[in-house]
Amino acid sequence: MCGIFGVIGHKEAAILTYLGIQGLQHRGQESAGIAVLSGGKLNVKTGMGQVREVFSLEEIKKFEGTVAIGHVRYSTSGTSSLANAQPLYATTSKGEVALGHNGNLVNAHFLRQKLIKEGAILTGSSDSELILHLIARSTAPSMEDAIIDSLSEIQGAFSLLFLFKDKILAVRDPYGFRPLFLGKVENSFCFSSETAAIELIKGKVIKELMPGEVVIATKKNYKSIQWKKTKEHYFCIFEYVYFARPDSVLYNIPVSLSRINMGKRLAQEGKTKADIVIPVPDSGIFAAMGYSEESKIPLSFALIRSHYIGRTFIQPFQSIRDFGVRLKLSPISSIIKGKRIILVDDSIVRGTTMRQIVNLLKNAGAKEIHVKISCPPTRFPCYYGIDTPTSEELIAYNKNVEEVCEFIGATSLQYLSKEAMEKSVDLEKKWFCTACWDGDYPVLPLSSKQQRLFSLKKQ
Amino acid sequence: MCGIFGVIGHKEAAILTYLGIQGLQHRGQESAGIAVLSGGKLNVKTGMGQVREVFSLEEIKKFEGTVAIGHVRYSTSGTSSLANAQPLYATTSKGEVALGHNGNLVNAHFLRQKLIKEGAILTGSSDSELILHLIARSTAPSMEDAIIDSLSEIQGAFSLLFLFKDKILAVRDPYGFRPLFLGKVENSFCFSSETAAIELIKGKVIKELMPGEVVIATKKNYKSIQWKKTKEHYFCIFEYVYFARPDSVLYNIPVSLSRINMGKRLAQEGKTKADIVIPVPDSGIFAAMGYSEESKIPLSFALIRSHYIGRTFIQPFQSIRDFGVRLKLSPISSIIKGKRIILVDDSIVRGTTMRQIVNLLKNAGAKEIHVKISCPPTRFPCYYGIDTPTSEELIAYNKNVEEVCEFIGATSLQYLSKEAMEKSVDLEKKWFCTACWDGDYPVLPLSSKQQRLFSLKKQ
Amino acid sequence: MCGIFGVIGHKEAAILTYLGIQGLQHRGQESAGIAVLSGGKLNVKTGMGQVREVFSLEEIKKFEGTVAIGHVRYSTSGTSSLANAQPLYATTSKGEVALGHNGNLVNAHFLRQKLIKEGAILTGSSDSELILHLIARSTAPSMEDAIIDSLSEIQGAFSLLFLFKDKILAVRDPYGFRPLFLGKVENSFCFSSETAAIELIKGKVIKELMPGEVVIATKKNYKSIQWKKTKEHYFCIFEYVYFARPDSVLYNIPVSLSRINMGKRLAQEGKTKADIVIPVPDSGIFAAMGYSEESKIPLSFALIRSHYIGRTFIQPFQSIRDFGVRLKLSPISSIIKGKRIILVDDSIVRGTTMRQIVNLLKNAGAKEIHVKISCPPTRFPCYYGIDTPTSEELIAYNKNVEEVCEFIGATSLQYLSKEAMEKSVDLEKKWFCTACWDGDYPVLPLSSKQQRLFSLKKQ
Amino acid sequence: MCGIFGVIGHKEAAILTYLGIQGLQHRGQESAGIAVLSGGKLNVKTGMGQVREVFSLEEIKKFEGTVAIGHVRYSTSGTSSLANAQPLYATTSKGEVALGHNGNLVNAHFLRQKLIKEGAILTGSSDSELILHLIARSTAPSMEDAIIDSLSEIQGAFSLLFLFKDKILAVRDPYGFRPLFLGKVENSFCFSSETAAIELIKGKVIKELMPGEVVIATKKNYKSIQWKKTKEHYFCIFEYVYFARPDSVLYNIPVSLSRINMGKRLAQEGKTKADIVIPVPDSGIFAAMGYSEESKIPLSFALIRSHYIGRTFIQPFQSIRDFGVRLKLSPISSIIKGKRIILVDDSIVRGTTMRQIVNLLKNAGAKEIHVKISCPPTRFPCYYGIDTPTSEELIAYNKNVEEVCEFIGATSLQYLSKEAMEKSVDLEKKWFCTACWDGDYPVLPLSSKQQRLFSLKKQ
Repeated sequence: MCGIFGVIGHKEAAILTYLGIQGLQHRGQESAGIAVLSGGKLNVKTGMGQVREVFSLEEIKKFEGTVAIGHVRYSTSGTSSLANAQPLYATTSKGEVALGHNGNLVNAHFLRQKLIKEGAILTGSSDSELILHLIARSTAPSMEDAIIDSLSEIQGAFSLLFLFKDKILAVRDPYGFRPLFLGKVENSFCFSSETAAIELIKGKVIKELMPGEVVIATKKNYKSIQWKKTKEHYFCIFEYVYFARPDSVLYNIPVSLSRINMGKRLAQEGKTKADIVIPVPDSGIFAAMGYSEESKIPLSFALIRSHYIGRTFIQPFQSIRDFGVRLKLSPISSIIKGKRIILVDDSIVRGTTMRQIVNLLKNAGAKEIHVKISCPPTRFPCYYGIDTPTSEELIAYNKNVEEVCEFIGATSLQYLSKEAMEKSVDLEKKWFCTACWDGDYPVLPLSSKQQRLFSLKKQ
Repeated sequence: MCGIFGVIGHKEAAILTYLGIQGLQHRGQESAGIAVLSGGKLNVKTGMGQVREVFSLEEIKKFEGTVAIGHVRYSTSGTSSLANAQPLYATTSKGEVALGHNGNLVNAHFLRQKLIKEGAILTGSSDSELILHLIARSTAPSMEDAIIDSLSEIQGAFSLLFLFKDKILAVRDPYGFRPLFLGKVENSFCFSSETAAIELIKGKVIKELMPGEVVIATKKNYKSIQWKKTKEHYFCIFEYVYFARPDSVLYNIPVSLSRINMGKRLAQEGKTKADIVIPVPDSGIFAAMGYSEESKIPLSFALIRSHYIGRTFIQPFQSIRDFGVRLKLSPISSIIKGKRIILVDDSIVRGTTMRQIVNLLKNAGAKEIHVKISCPPTRFPCYYGIDTPTSEELIAYNKNVEEVCEFIGATSLQYLSKEAMEKSVDLEKKWFCTACWDGDYPVLPLSSKQQRLFSLKKQ
Repeated sequence: MCGIFGVIGHKEAAILTYLGIQGLQHRGQESAGIAVLSGGKLNVKTGMGQVREVFSLEEIKKFEGTVAIGHVRYSTSGTSSLANAQPLYATTSKGEVALGHNGNLVNAHFLRQKLIKEGAILTGSSDSELILHLIARSTAPSMEDAIIDSLSEIQGAFSLLFLFKDKILAVRDPYGFRPLFLGKVENSFCFSSETAAIELIKGKVIKELMPGEVVIATKKNYKSIQWKKTKEHYFCIFEYVYFARPDSVLYNIPVSLSRINMGKRLAQEGKTKADIVIPVPDSGIFAAMGYSEESKIPLSFALIRSHYIGRTFIQPFQSIRDFGVRLKLSPISSIIKGKRIILVDDSIVRGTTMRQIVNLLKNAGAKEIHVKISCPPTRFPCYYGIDTPTSEELIAYNKNVEEVCEFIGATSLQYLSKEAMEKSVDLEKKWFCTACWDGDYPVLPLSSKQQRLFSLKKQ
Repeated sequence: MCGIFGVIGHKEAAILTYLGIQGLQHRGQESAGIAVLSGGKLNVKTGMGQVREVFSLEEIKKFEGTVAIGHVRYSTSGTSSLANAQPLYATTSKGEVALGHNGNLVNAHFLRQKLIKEGAILTGSSDSELILHLIARSTAPSMEDAIIDSLSEIQGAFSLLFLFKDKILAVRDPYGFRPLFLGKVENSFCFSSETAAIELIKGKVIKELMPGEVVIATKKNYKSIQWKKTKEHYFCIFEYVYFARPDSVLYNIPVSLSRINMGKRLAQEGKTKADIVIPVPDSGIFAAMGYSEESKIPLSFALIRSHYIGRTFIQPFQSIRDFGVRLKLSPISSIIKGKRIILVDDSIVRGTTMRQIVNLLKNAGAKEIHVKISCPPTRFPCYYGIDTPTSEELIAYNKNVEEVCEFIGATSLQYLSKEAMEKSVDLEKKWFCTACWDGDYPVLPLSSKQQRLFSLKKQ
């Protein structure tokens, strides 16, 4: 997953962009980058790691300029390397351009082969680079036209920010997989993957870009173009379940409320007698709030987050090699001991982490552990920007609910139904992508490896 | 404040100590250090910053040895500099020794003058260095005797770990201001400021050191000496209110439960009509749980923590210079809007942060904001290891509750009474230091500056 | 200027390449990089600065693989940035390829415009990137053919190393501006800009690539193709004068001997009475040896090199801002005082450094300072890979010898004649590029800016 | 060995001290440090490595203040660690003080035991720390008196700079083992181990401190005290042979001239037929100049220095593990081949490096290699500040000249006689320490280990 942010027309565009991508840090911690237009030249700096690791104060201070875009990345397509960090930059037939991309193209493999065959050279392994090539090859006279021209060739999930010649051009794909917002901060415009990052810099949200919409902003004003109309939208409902910040608002629905609703509906769908509701921090907090409110079982923060040490640090030492989740989460035994526990989290992927958490609670004296997941079983990979593993690695693809429950060692396990999940978000029209649960992919990927995965699903 | 941790008799003593001081990271983030006994030599590495910033994997791997102590520091006495980072190390008349100290001496000024007059050279500005000088000057024949000998000369708060000649010697001051625990991990012994750090490394707590107790551990066994008996103990109750981890247990009382009790008693002492209870994360979480449980007003996580940017980073940029707490905390407007809010935190120091938080909530649409503080008004500085400012800077020293409420802009403000706070901890004997609220200092500091502060209090 | 080095068929190819480019460090200190073929994948690491700053031991150890190429760069075309560091890497229609380039294309501007017009995207600003684009666009079936195909489109100076599919392909341009050698180390082949780097790794030189030659090496053998034949060669004679290492051999002529000869001929062309011959270290050492031998005036190392502090370090401090060359060179007054001095260096560019050196010697008590330059006056910029400034900035373009002498403050100034310089190298056929002295450029650059410089020359 | 430098009364004292210790970098590259008096407070920063590695520009800029001292260290006493880096700093009964020390105490072991017994705590392992303890314990009323008081207790080699209360106090030991100079830069005073560092910052040498002299400088003036008079001086003649910079002047004798004289006398003492004189760079350059001048055999720079890679970097790679001196020195075969060579260097310690150099020359085709050493055979360790190994490790202690010649593989080997060496320096009175050649130690060390070495010598 990735996050994108941009500012145009502000005398301190770089520091606002820096704060903006920090506000989107949860969307990607592998690499970060900022591109600034400074004296007619585009300066780009990218680096591996979190925003605060990549940029020093001196660098941000040097980034003078009134137009900037930034990006945070968690690799989904392409290997983890500096060459894939964004914003990407290129000199093209339409001038200099920088690009930040959130989402994943499903026809990347095909485009890649086509472009290489036509003589393009690819310097990274991500799909975002392909978009720049399409634009560079477009025969449209202006950059704007070339961008819109190229959009027809790409398929999949893409929210894009282009920075070129004193403009920022923002694009949302026709299905609307990933969010994108236009805002105002002081007298300048800003763009962000989520509303929370706009509010962080004291900005106001002007509007959410609709699927198929392009917004072109200059320092003075902006215009909107509906470059493509589609009857159906497929917004990623997992943004509500887990990915987006709880203080963001998507399609006018507050993320926090949708999560609270999921928790309530979990309680409605399966009544369980218990003493306390414990969220897995931080992913399960809001669903746990809803569960507690609905079930009248008290909410308790009996699992707390610890300082985290990376795997590479643990591995060399025999005595701590198996500590696992214990280094991330601490149970409060005095609360847990002898209790019947409702444990709430957003999802189970491979099952190994949840098994360790259940075990931690058992060792802390829990009498019963009822695991409640605020979405249906995750059974299929995401081709639209979330880094889920293949079906073979997803525990719910290989096991039914009882088997998963047995694997994680819980007293009981309950998933939220798809209907309840959708109702929790309460959009007027239920235009969601729910492929990771039901395998109904709105846009089909094309690579042979992906084809194989599809056939797996049909079995 | 500081945290100390040690391991003796374990073949991977250094990595356990590394994890141990990470588990105590909340007690001090200014500097960190580890001393390891390796081939008969003491190796010490200290550095500024958090544990994970100070030590690389390579360094921890090189720290071979079966005895180690570690320290995390937040400066309370002495300026913030590498020279004051601990463990301190010295070659003395009794051999090599390393020292980690949690607490603050009240007769440091006097000892400093005395030692310098006698020809000692001081290389830092902290009080802990003085302890090593006293030991070096002791005429007692052994290190053990010299340490116990020297303890009679120091006054104030001190939990100490000494590492020397294949032994760890742990000391707790006669009043018991700061906690200290002995534990067992596999077949080795460990020491820790808090129980949570022992549990982090899968250890078991053997016992809490009592005030005036010394425990001397070798690889094979340990012995306990009551080096001084005092009728009265003065354990820092603020450890329950704020400082210790919620998953630690002090004097057999779980910290989490004492905080939940404080929240319950807050609700009992002052009934307030409201829609939701919001904790200031993470300090107000457990008191908020108690408040919610007692008042039946739902608990809501409508303030969430953000990534933090340091002051030095913000200062150069005009447009974000005043962002303040906004960069640390984000309100969830969709929850807050139109609500009557109970806002729970552990304390108010200068009042400026709370004023900003109240303002954040107002801007997010809160209808009423009732601030609930889980201890009495903080009016006096701590001389025993907590970095509270002088009385002049403490808002509750200068203003009464109504005036503080007006300053922070809240609808109402309620502090927990001292009696309710003490009952919340529920120790059989109520042996607490409560000086920061009532100014009753169990041990008197001696410097002229401190004397002035005392006289201020009397006014 | 740049240096290139490669190894194929050696189990420790990366460390040998690391040493190889360190042996070529004098050819470029702005950036460094290594590409290694590892398990069928090309791994590339580049960084700003010297070789030892760019690569850690850990990184070199991870670079497993039996084929590697490396590059050191001093920017001549394209700005100084990480995007321009080499080896360049791309995925193309012919597979993955890495490229290291020494030299400068004169039709880069034209190619750049053409490629961009055709839809290419350029990610850096150097000319080397263009070569990869030409190859990618070639319709030739194999990489080898595509490379040779593309060579016909590029004009100027280019010695190239391509790494692709278990092969290294080495190219020298038809005029032979820049050197390139094939060598053998143990049972593997290596390539290097200079012989000294081959000897550094205990290798033997097999042959120098001739102008217009391509050598394709696999792990087992190599083959040579004369891809283009030209009647005339234009080897950069400045490689003998200054650029190459004194322990290298070019066209079978040892660089050290050619420099000694230049010194001898300087002494023959202009007899000067003096007490000692002082070289400017290290550039003037070998010419000074020759001058001393011929003139029988003793050689003296009365100027010694100091530790160097960069300009950015000096600038903020008023009291040292004007120290200039004083921080790089120290005169030994006891030797210099009262002496008539022959000061030998390889060239004068802007004249400011030489003026400072003459001034240093004057202040150290020199009676007379006779400056001897081992080549003719540098009057024209180099378009073939050396970073000389424009004619306007070259002091010898604007002033005659007497005026230059006056500017630098010397007692007298003598340049070596072009004929003597050429005789000093003593090649059978005098196939040299001497454009920086006489403006006779063998291949014409095409950009408008360069055209202007040509017209300047004609005046 | 170490270097010390200080400035008092200059508004940019820190940057001048930074340059000063860079000018003394050859005297120690293990650690570096600067102490600055700033607003009445002493700020000290030390670090491992060379000066430019230890200090960033930002740090130097922050070091405001008009008084500063600096130090570079190569460990001779005490292990290599940050705790031993200087300037040392302490708060004492006489106030705050910083100390830089060049030299080595011979009664350190005794003082160490005495001080520890008296209750001192030692934080490092170097002898310099002991001096601060003696001062702190002195009953003299002022710092000045306490310093002079303490000097009577220390024995051995010591040139010292103390910074305290707006003064710099410089001390040279009664035998004058190590040099120390007072200079003037603009209107301020400076101190330096060598004259070259004073000239580097455009200062003028005022005077060399005489053995037993103390100079106390304030911002306005200085005064000199002869704190101890001794009939005999023992200046380290190895400073002339190798250690000092060639552009320094010691006891009014230019170091360069003394080295040239040594080379001349080498030629006089042993006539050898040869074709060229090659210096080992940089240590043999000036003696080679003298040898060439006297013998009329031409001087040739046929060995050149390369970029250096550390041992840790080489070790992991099998193919380069044995490269040794080849990575530091490159022979120019075209000059060397078939020649009879005079190879000049300053000394042979263990013999292994010289053996590798001789071997390099042989492989480059040398016909004969006559090694000329510009001092007598080094047979005894230095107790006065130079890091020579024990006698057992010194090749000339174990072997006679013929055997050493055989070991290094040279055609012949000649050492300069002690008389010729002394005459080369040409001091009026020959007050030299020549212990490393003849074992006549002017001041006796006292440790048992050192006693054993003495007895070894007597055999």
